[in-house]
Amino acid sequence: MCRWLAYTGSPVLVADALYTPVHSLIDQSLHSRLGAETTNGDGFGLGWYDQEGTPGVFRSIEPAWNDQNLRELAAHIRSHMFFAHIRAAIGSAVQQTNCHPFRHGRWLFMHNGFVDGFASIKRDLVLAVDEALYPEIRGQADTEIIFFLALTFGLEDDPPEAVARTIGLVEEYDRRRGVEYPFQGTITTANGEHLWAFRYSSERKSRSLFVSRDVRTLRELYPDREVLERLSDDARLVVSEPIGDLPGAWVEVPEASWGMAGKGEDQIHSFKPKQPDKAVAVPA
Amino acid sequence: MCRWLAYTGSPVLVADALYTPVHSLIDQSLHSRLGAETTNGDGFGLGWYDQEGTPGVFRSIEPAWNDQNLRELAAHIRSHMFFAHIRAAIGSAVQQTNCHPFRHGRWLFMHNGFVDGFASIKRDLVLAVDEALYPEIRGQADTEIIFFLALTFGLEDDPPEAVARTIGLVEEYDRRRGVEYPFQGTITTANGEHLWAFRYSSERKSRSLFVSRDVRTLRELYPDREVLERLSDDARLVVSEPIGDLPGAWVEVPEASWGMAGKGEDQIHSFKPKQPDKAVAVPA
Amino acid sequence: MCRWLAYTGSPVLVADALYTPVHSLIDQSLHSRLGAETTNGDGFGLGWYDQEGTPGVFRSIEPAWNDQNLRELAAHIRSHMFFAHIRAAIGSAVQQTNCHPFRHGRWLFMHNGFVDGFASIKRDLVLAVDEALYPEIRGQADTEIIFFLALTFGLEDDPPEAVARTIGLVEEYDRRRGVEYPFQGTITTANGEHLWAFRYSSERKSRSLFVSRDVRTLRELYPDREVLERLSDDARLVVSEPIGDLPGAWVEVPEASWGMAGKGEDQIHSFKPKQPDKAVAVPA
Amino acid sequence: MCRWLAYTGSPVLVADALYTPVHSLIDQSLHSRLGAETTNGDGFGLGWYDQEGTPGVFRSIEPAWNDQNLRELAAHIRSHMFFAHIRAAIGSAVQQTNCHPFRHGRWLFMHNGFVDGFASIKRDLVLAVDEALYPEIRGQADTEIIFFLALTFGLEDDPPEAVARTIGLVEEYDRRRGVEYPFQGTITTANGEHLWAFRYSSERKSRSLFVSRDVRTLRELYPDREVLERLSDDARLVVSEPIGDLPGAWVEVPEASWGMAGKGEDQIHSFKPKQPDKAVAVPA
Repeated sequence: MCRWLAYTGSPVLVADALYTPVHSLIDQSLHSRLGAETTNGDGFGLGWYDQEGTPGVFRSIEPAWNDQNLRELAAHIRSHMFFAHIRAAIGSAVQQTNCHPFRHGRWLFMHNGFVDGFASIKRDLVLAVDEALYPEIRGQADTEIIFFLALTFGLEDDPPEAVARTIGLVEEYDRRRGVEYPFQGTITTANGEHLWAFRYSSERKSRSLFVSRDVRTLRELYPDREVLERLSDDARLVVSEPIGDLPGAWVEVPEASWGMAGKGEDQIHSFKPKQPDKAVAVPA
Repeated sequence: MCRWLAYTGSPVLVADALYTPVHSLIDQSLHSRLGAETTNGDGFGLGWYDQEGTPGVFRSIEPAWNDQNLRELAAHIRSHMFFAHIRAAIGSAVQQTNCHPFRHGRWLFMHNGFVDGFASIKRDLVLAVDEALYPEIRGQADTEIIFFLALTFGLEDDPPEAVARTIGLVEEYDRRRGVEYPFQGTITTANGEHLWAFRYSSERKSRSLFVSRDVRTLRELYPDREVLERLSDDARLVVSEPIGDLPGAWVEVPEASWGMAGKGEDQIHSFKPKQPDKAVAVPA
Repeated sequence: MCRWLAYTGSPVLVADALYTPVHSLIDQSLHSRLGAETTNGDGFGLGWYDQEGTPGVFRSIEPAWNDQNLRELAAHIRSHMFFAHIRAAIGSAVQQTNCHPFRHGRWLFMHNGFVDGFASIKRDLVLAVDEALYPEIRGQADTEIIFFLALTFGLEDDPPEAVARTIGLVEEYDRRRGVEYPFQGTITTANGEHLWAFRYSSERKSRSLFVSRDVRTLRELYPDREVLERLSDDARLVVSEPIGDLPGAWVEVPEASWGMAGKGEDQIHSFKPKQPDKAVAVPA
Repeated sequence: MCRWLAYTGSPVLVADALYTPVHSLIDQSLHSRLGAETTNGDGFGLGWYDQEGTPGVFRSIEPAWNDQNLRELAAHIRSHMFFAHIRAAIGSAVQQTNCHPFRHGRWLFMHNGFVDGFASIKRDLVLAVDEALYPEIRGQADTEIIFFLALTFGLEDDPPEAVARTIGLVEEYDRRRGVEYPFQGTITTANGEHLWAFRYSSERKSRSLFVSRDVRTLRELYPDREVLERLSDDARLVVSEPIGDLPGAWVEVPEASWGMAGKGEDQIHSFKPKQPDKAVAVPA
């Protein structure tokens, strides 16, 4: 059910993060170790920030492992913040409009996991999306609806609050339908300056999520790795599962938590979905 | 804005209708004469009935003119009733879930035209779709919503009534938003036994629609055409614009009308959208 | 490095062989057990014989597991002889012209395996292809060249002889370049009446190959399987690895052998590549 | 039969050249005015130079006009030299390996036109390609073979000489087969510092080719066009047919000529194919 990677730090070539010598994200499209699905071959997406006003997004419905265009772009795009996602479709079609990351203005958003019983509550969730945003929904994936709900709930102002309210709504609607564990997964979102990552599942057995250690620590651990010299001190990689061959380089993000990185700031907090107010008209 | 072809009659090879020597539907994907767009290269679809319970559907996002798979299938599929559609996308993505024909059970449905101001009323239209059908909506095209509205309004029992109510609803919602000419186009739908075709536009300047003449008449006109000998007397082709090089073989379907063909029965009637009852809760 | 399936017998729906409940060929596109590669997601192909003069071929560059068109075609095409192939590309591009089965006139041909050091001897092999056939080469896969060499060496008259001479030539050219084990794999070819299957590798550790047992035996083993009642007595499936959940239903094809099936005839023989005659001008 | 555009000058966003308000190259994919084919929807390619060692290449088999990825890349890639090509396939498959521009090391190469009777002489032409380059041939297009012949004849050292020898060889081989007008078209090639463009056809009725006027002249002609202020004085666009709405901005490249641009140098010379030396072993 997907794997992803997000980078923030000094500008690097996307290929440096994507095509690492050992167990790269691209390798994981064929052979994931920690994913719910070992193969993530139902398309992929790349989103990156540069000097332009909105991030660029490249999506494809082919498996990432043999995609020549991805290889070309990764070898030519330098960015200080980028997202990469490989997809294992569960239910929705393999088409570009279902590929992550999703974008709205300067915001990117991606997800590994699922909404249980999504088909039953999709209509209700879509109705909860801001009517002004509704025409922007292009695909049929659960993640896209989650993204538009988060936007509806103020993602651009307060990402942790918006995601908490979104997952709270999903849990509320799903539980009314008798679903025990409505939400599963990890989410990341960014605005080009900071990125936020979330790990949460209703069952409290969330998909794996890791963040790279402080670069200074990494340089001490691996003084011979030339790539670490090129990174700024505040560089971070957030990944579904560790890439590369650097034992000790990764810290697992705790169950039910969220973190922020970018521009030298790092935070980690516990995460709890927020139930809808009475004021929100929940369908009976 | 798309071109299409529908056949009913004795089983023929799809290629016989699709790859005619002169101005075939496939040629029209490159060079339509009567279409609003001369190029219809944003994917295509083929739907066909055979002995299986539901019709087969083959869709592709590539232009039809050079598609090898379409050429192969057309040269091997024999069918007594089939639909072919070439698409010129206006707004919605080029993806298989937006390609016609759409299918529900034994029903196929396709369209050439558009709903004006669709983005503004899409949400309201989607809300009018039967909740039980809602999870089946897969794409983002206006035609798919029209199809699901028609199903909601009883397409499987009374196609002309259901299409009249659907277009009536579109006109009602659109006019509340100040759109002058809400609906434009031609529609065809079938259940494997009969097919229905509609030509209507709010502006009364509908996209072109033609039906082939009675086969016995055609044989008299073209005694040397061996293909006509192989057709049953009740065979009919309904097309967006004439194919082939048979002057006199085509009759234009009148503005604002609908017809039925199949199983030896032929009818033509005038068509008028049906405004929603008061009982239907129209969003304020 | 690919998995494949070939059927001969009374006409069946392709889906009956392709989408078996347990460990189907389509499952193997995600999780092969016996293949050199566990994922075979680099496109697929389907070739089938019917009443038309040449077999139909449907090819796609998407993974088979989520392909809607394959699902549709398999549910509608009935055939007395068909080939299905799922690809794990090694070196050559993921494009339809590299997808098996390959076709020439009434002949289909597919392969699981590889020519070691192919890049080095490709030019010499291509030069050995009949000049009249040369313009038909469309892709860049080793298998396509092998097919055209086999045609050059009389595949249409004597398949075992032609394949023996082809592999003999590959071994000769490769060994001059110092390659120890030039050829690896299994091959199947058919003309709509009979099919031939080959299992051979220069190293004598060939990719797996199985053939289904005699249908009468299968019916005794599995009296409750209704599908077996529908099959003719001479029906055979030849597969890279067993499909379904019928222990005892499969016989492994011996190392270095070839067999023939179709029209009630079954044969199995040992296989030995045939070195090129002195008369064949081998490049120095 | 294809349209193309090449830019050299101060770094600009690819979109500035590709998505001009009027009659852009992307519009020409739907409606070319001067092309042999009005629709160029059989894939496209983009090649660009940046600070990396080799140029990037992005290719797609979809029509350019609705391609979201092309739109994204064009809006994010800045380059001082880039090529864009839209294809109208004649004979060879619609696949990425047949899409221009072709690349070898730092060299890009693209073409609008064809080799008449290519199928008959392809084998001979391929034999004339340097054996060391042979394994790099990936597709089946005539242009790719022309590129590899030009490389064989020293493209990297002397492009005009190499192209003259290549077309000379094509003419020689084709005329032995009785083809009257072997070569047709325009070619452009670049190494990241200079670009060379050729206009030639054996019939002396070559496909159209235009080059933008001196930027200082353009600024005088169009003092209000802000985009011209951003361009360096030596910026040049070379195009199959004029883009945009700037009458007087384009100069037609004369029949049978070649030109060079880049790094402030501009040249134009007459072009004449060079017949193969006796020394070259021409197949009998």
